[in-house]
Amino acid sequence: MSEAAEGRTHRRGFASDNHAGAHPDVLAAIAAANAGHAESYGDDAHTRALADLFRRHLGSAAEAFVVFNGTAANVLSIEAVTRPFEAVICAESAHLNVDECGAPERIAAVKLLTVATEDGKLKPADIGRWDHKIGDTHHVQPRLVSISQASELGTVYTPEEVRALADAAHERELLLHIDGARIANAAAGLGLPLEVITTDAGADLLSFGGTKNGLLLGEAVVFLRPGLSQGFEFVRKQGMQLASKMRLLSAQFEALLGEGDLWLANATHANAMAQRLAKAIESIDGVQIVQPVESNAVFARLPRTVIDQIQSEWPYPHPFYVWDERTDVVRWMCAWDTEPADVDDFAAAIAAAFES
Amino acid sequence: MSEAAEGRTHRRGFASDNHAGAHPDVLAAIAAANAGHAESYGDDAHTRALADLFRRHLGSAAEAFVVFNGTAANVLSIEAVTRPFEAVICAESAHLNVDECGAPERIAAVKLLTVATEDGKLKPADIGRWDHKIGDTHHVQPRLVSISQASELGTVYTPEEVRALADAAHERELLLHIDGARIANAAAGLGLPLEVITTDAGADLLSFGGTKNGLLLGEAVVFLRPGLSQGFEFVRKQGMQLASKMRLLSAQFEALLGEGDLWLANATHANAMAQRLAKAIESIDGVQIVQPVESNAVFARLPRTVIDQIQSEWPYPHPFYVWDERTDVVRWMCAWDTEPADVDDFAAAIAAAFES
Amino acid sequence: MSEAAEGRTHRRGFASDNHAGAHPDVLAAIAAANAGHAESYGDDAHTRALADLFRRHLGSAAEAFVVFNGTAANVLSIEAVTRPFEAVICAESAHLNVDECGAPERIAAVKLLTVATEDGKLKPADIGRWDHKIGDTHHVQPRLVSISQASELGTVYTPEEVRALADAAHERELLLHIDGARIANAAAGLGLPLEVITTDAGADLLSFGGTKNGLLLGEAVVFLRPGLSQGFEFVRKQGMQLASKMRLLSAQFEALLGEGDLWLANATHANAMAQRLAKAIESIDGVQIVQPVESNAVFARLPRTVIDQIQSEWPYPHPFYVWDERTDVVRWMCAWDTEPADVDDFAAAIAAAFES
Amino acid sequence: MSEAAEGRTHRRGFASDNHAGAHPDVLAAIAAANAGHAESYGDDAHTRALADLFRRHLGSAAEAFVVFNGTAANVLSIEAVTRPFEAVICAESAHLNVDECGAPERIAAVKLLTVATEDGKLKPADIGRWDHKIGDTHHVQPRLVSISQASELGTVYTPEEVRALADAAHERELLLHIDGARIANAAAGLGLPLEVITTDAGADLLSFGGTKNGLLLGEAVVFLRPGLSQGFEFVRKQGMQLASKMRLLSAQFEALLGEGDLWLANATHANAMAQRLAKAIESIDGVQIVQPVESNAVFARLPRTVIDQIQSEWPYPHPFYVWDERTDVVRWMCAWDTEPADVDDFAAAIAAAFES
Repeated sequence: MSEAAEGRTHRRGFASDNHAGAHPDVLAAIAAANAGHAESYGDDAHTRALADLFRRHLGSAAEAFVVFNGTAANVLSIEAVTRPFEAVICAESAHLNVDECGAPERIAAVKLLTVATEDGKLKPADIGRWDHKIGDTHHVQPRLVSISQASELGTVYTPEEVRALADAAHERELLLHIDGARIANAAAGLGLPLEVITTDAGADLLSFGGTKNGLLLGEAVVFLRPGLSQGFEFVRKQGMQLASKMRLLSAQFEALLGEGDLWLANATHANAMAQRLAKAIESIDGVQIVQPVESNAVFARLPRTVIDQIQSEWPYPHPFYVWDERTDVVRWMCAWDTEPADVDDFAAAIAAAFES
Repeated sequence: MSEAAEGRTHRRGFASDNHAGAHPDVLAAIAAANAGHAESYGDDAHTRALADLFRRHLGSAAEAFVVFNGTAANVLSIEAVTRPFEAVICAESAHLNVDECGAPERIAAVKLLTVATEDGKLKPADIGRWDHKIGDTHHVQPRLVSISQASELGTVYTPEEVRALADAAHERELLLHIDGARIANAAAGLGLPLEVITTDAGADLLSFGGTKNGLLLGEAVVFLRPGLSQGFEFVRKQGMQLASKMRLLSAQFEALLGEGDLWLANATHANAMAQRLAKAIESIDGVQIVQPVESNAVFARLPRTVIDQIQSEWPYPHPFYVWDERTDVVRWMCAWDTEPADVDDFAAAIAAAFES
Repeated sequence: MSEAAEGRTHRRGFASDNHAGAHPDVLAAIAAANAGHAESYGDDAHTRALADLFRRHLGSAAEAFVVFNGTAANVLSIEAVTRPFEAVICAESAHLNVDECGAPERIAAVKLLTVATEDGKLKPADIGRWDHKIGDTHHVQPRLVSISQASELGTVYTPEEVRALADAAHERELLLHIDGARIANAAAGLGLPLEVITTDAGADLLSFGGTKNGLLLGEAVVFLRPGLSQGFEFVRKQGMQLASKMRLLSAQFEALLGEGDLWLANATHANAMAQRLAKAIESIDGVQIVQPVESNAVFARLPRTVIDQIQSEWPYPHPFYVWDERTDVVRWMCAWDTEPADVDDFAAAIAAAFES
Repeated sequence: MSEAAEGRTHRRGFASDNHAGAHPDVLAAIAAANAGHAESYGDDAHTRALADLFRRHLGSAAEAFVVFNGTAANVLSIEAVTRPFEAVICAESAHLNVDECGAPERIAAVKLLTVATEDGKLKPADIGRWDHKIGDTHHVQPRLVSISQASELGTVYTPEEVRALADAAHERELLLHIDGARIANAAAGLGLPLEVITTDAGADLLSFGGTKNGLLLGEAVVFLRPGLSQGFEFVRKQGMQLASKMRLLSAQFEALLGEGDLWLANATHANAMAQRLAKAIESIDGVQIVQPVESNAVFARLPRTVIDQIQSEWPYPHPFYVWDERTDVVRWMCAWDTEPADVDDFAAAIAAAFES
């Protein structure tokens, strides 16, 4: 352990933005909403107020449905708009494809058609790869394009890039879905409102991420166009994602999306910490930053010995994941509560590992 | 509105024990667990401590997995131990059959074989009804018996009744599952430890209910016998029920199951309120209590005009559900936070409705 | 064994109309279609000709898709027009519910909402039983009414009865599906064209039965209204029901539905054999025919000792099934190839069993 | 059209071995088995005899279950031995992945983990690619390795290659499945008995192909090791693949596998026709044979203009598929009934197209 870190109570690593807890304002909002009785399953004042907040941030057609986690937000988004013989085009690195333990195939009953990417971002040309299979009875039929914003590699699509993908999708009568587990970080990184990078850029559905942005738990499936949400209340219930004490989830989102724009403050801070980390280590000889730092992630290549040393000496929780075992690329994530001192300690530890 | 109720801030009705919020101790436990970073997805101190607590309450073989809600606890319990051609024997009134929007069939891929009951409770003889279909290729094969404890009608199985069902199940190489969304109320009603009415009585799996017992949200799938949980960590993840900030769910259960036995205090209180309500209205001419009051529910038959009057004059949230439209039987549920004054107000309102 | 039966080569029992083989004309049609090469998967002359035949028999909007068996015809019919949170209303005795090993729930992902019946036939009032659950998020939503024509109990719906069910379904925006595994027997029993008892009577989809009517194998999903078949070619393929050498299935249906109306001849004959059997045994003291004989089935109640005696002395294949073990009701099915001598032998055996 | 082809009744192309009909001996076997009544669903003499034949060809532990088509044989093989969070490792070009319209994901509820190959054949090293994901809750867990024998590219695994894959699978507690839609062609190509290239080489399950080898229709799921088939009769029924007039399917396989070894004669002939075709065109300047011709397929690269010319002038059915639109590689399949004259005509047509 670097000396600088000693004596601090809560050592924060860079393994995941899920290692953080909930923002204090979020806990306060839960406590405030907790008093007395309210209708369960969403017929309450907080849930109604939240519907307005989502429309304010994502456009007047936005219909949002809160679910428990990101797996569900993605999977039920897909299930809502596909039939079982249809398919989703996504990056090979997409969370959908790699980290959902087969939930899209099992629950949404779709096949994923994947594209290898350099930077985690789909290109419009990727969408046409299955054009020759349209109408072929033996082949699944593309129906949805799903992109991650920010991507799994921390990169961010510009609104123009989203629009180009949306156009390529819509030309083929496909829909565009955004896995926005880190949509706040993307918006903060671009310095643009949420609506501009989603609805206005042509997206049709959005998995809106709350957990990584400071909630105790909660994500939302947001339909951005009229007509897409038909029957979704049943899809959510059957999908085991309808909370009984819904007001206590909705109140969290109110804290995030209401006055004060906590979502933006949290994301801006996490992104700034990633920039600080990148700056602090980019000049270390032997460290190569391998993706542009556009959100709250830094991807870097390090010598294996350095990786092993830091991982072995760092206390619980473990400090970071090796993203690609073959290339020794690691992932460092910053959270809403990462402090400058956490970054500086960690950068110092890296530098020290090179010297030892 | 009855006059007694005026001026009180939070009017509590009797529609559902889900209309209550979280217990203050539960919120405090969340706040305490929230500080700093921890491993996500369950590799944290709170989740480890919770495993011990479940073993203390349910036996040394107990393996518990926290999920978000009761639908998931039931459905994933079933999925864990069945193949898709197998079936679950349950009461026609079971939550599984009536209130899960088809999730058992859709997600766990089983068929439900239902039995009409008078009091919501299966009898050992019910389990043999499909014996002549064993081995019949054209018919689903029973694999699991699922009972609700307390039942959907508020009745409670004695340990001897559970044992008789377990024996009838095990004779046929079936497993016994308990839907324990209100297992705390059943234990409190019987005045018996949780282990005595579950593991010791022969049950194999338990959906352990937390939400109705005072949590913000959270239920647990508990395997009570060795060997049954194989692969369940994948079933939970694929079932979209793995929380990233798991410590914040586990901490809630710690508050419930740890020192102080909040689970029991909450359940005992809710049950007492149901007794109070039953006593307060049983002598009203025209009210007929139709099920024994053994947990936190009162089922009663009222004249339709009385039902309509109370429902129309009561403020938000609505005061109770009509359980059976054909027989004018209503359901009144008491929660962990129902106060004697709530009961008395409500009983007075019923009496008044008869007089108007 | 009755003496009359001795010396006959192929003893025919009454266990199932599936115990018969294929009609010789059907085998001849296969052989004729077999020569040379043809496109696979349905792009062939026989399949095109069959499309016309189905339109001739079932109306100009009819679109037929051949599948391998009756399970698939029913299950894929349902899958084609439902979403996973939707449900099918059917008789408790329906093949769908009792004899498909859970395939509707597993493959079509629906829940069955069942109604107990006296005679295997749904009544219009049955369709309204779930009206109060429409829009209830916790409950599956009815989408389809499925009736069996002829029913599992050999009874037949008149066109007026079908129309009343169709009207009751359509009022609620439900569709009417006919499980027509024995639609030919029903039409023959009523003395009416297929179109009159299906499309004209308001049905929307039909599982058209071929196997029991003399095919080697083959059933068809027939969409009777425009717009319902959208995407079904993919549903069939994914449902593992697309035959590569399709012409050899289509040719069988051509033999059935083309010039000569073999379908009607076969069904009329089987029905006549059932009438002959009913007449031959109705006067035996101790035999009670318990359902009207309207197609090719006879349901009768016999003393258990008589049942046991006949079943034990009859050679392979076994002569009949006990339909209801509790009431000693048996089912006798006649096939397209049942001969008068088979009936007379069997009736004599029954009479003899009473005397022994 | 080449002049040589004129005047011949049944023009055979090279698009698919499914364009052929059934072998006359197969039709004769159906007719012979058709007389009289027999138990349905497999309790008949032909089905029993078939069980012996499969054991004779595939080893004493072999348990075979006839299904209707190859999609079902593959998908139900997988379903039989996997849980929904498990996965199948296969070649990117596998039929499973490309041509089943998502049935493995939808029906067997697995994810496919695919490997790009040069020649359609997996290598032992491919199996270890997901080793680092074993036990990772977020990732599907490999359970089965599936290879196609002959492969989709007409290449054939030697018994040693199969053994190496089986060993690599078994080391990891995975099973080895062979998609044997053309297993007969592989055996004929290798000049080895079926058992040597399947059971003896370490395979655990086999989809045994009948349709392409001369049946009207029919494939079999064959479990080659004790204990794997548990419950499969229910999987088949629920999978909509249980034939009622089973004897008429079993009789076809008897014709194939019984005395005379029709399976081998048919496959040997088809392979010889592929060799004849390869020889006839290999010397044409501009034709490049791109895969070794080891079964009944020839893969060749042609100029696009030549492809277009032959496809446009050939009568129904269309003569061949372009396998890879990007590289102008075409696939030519020979069937059990392809005649030398068909090959010579076709080769002449190709040569002529180059000259025109």
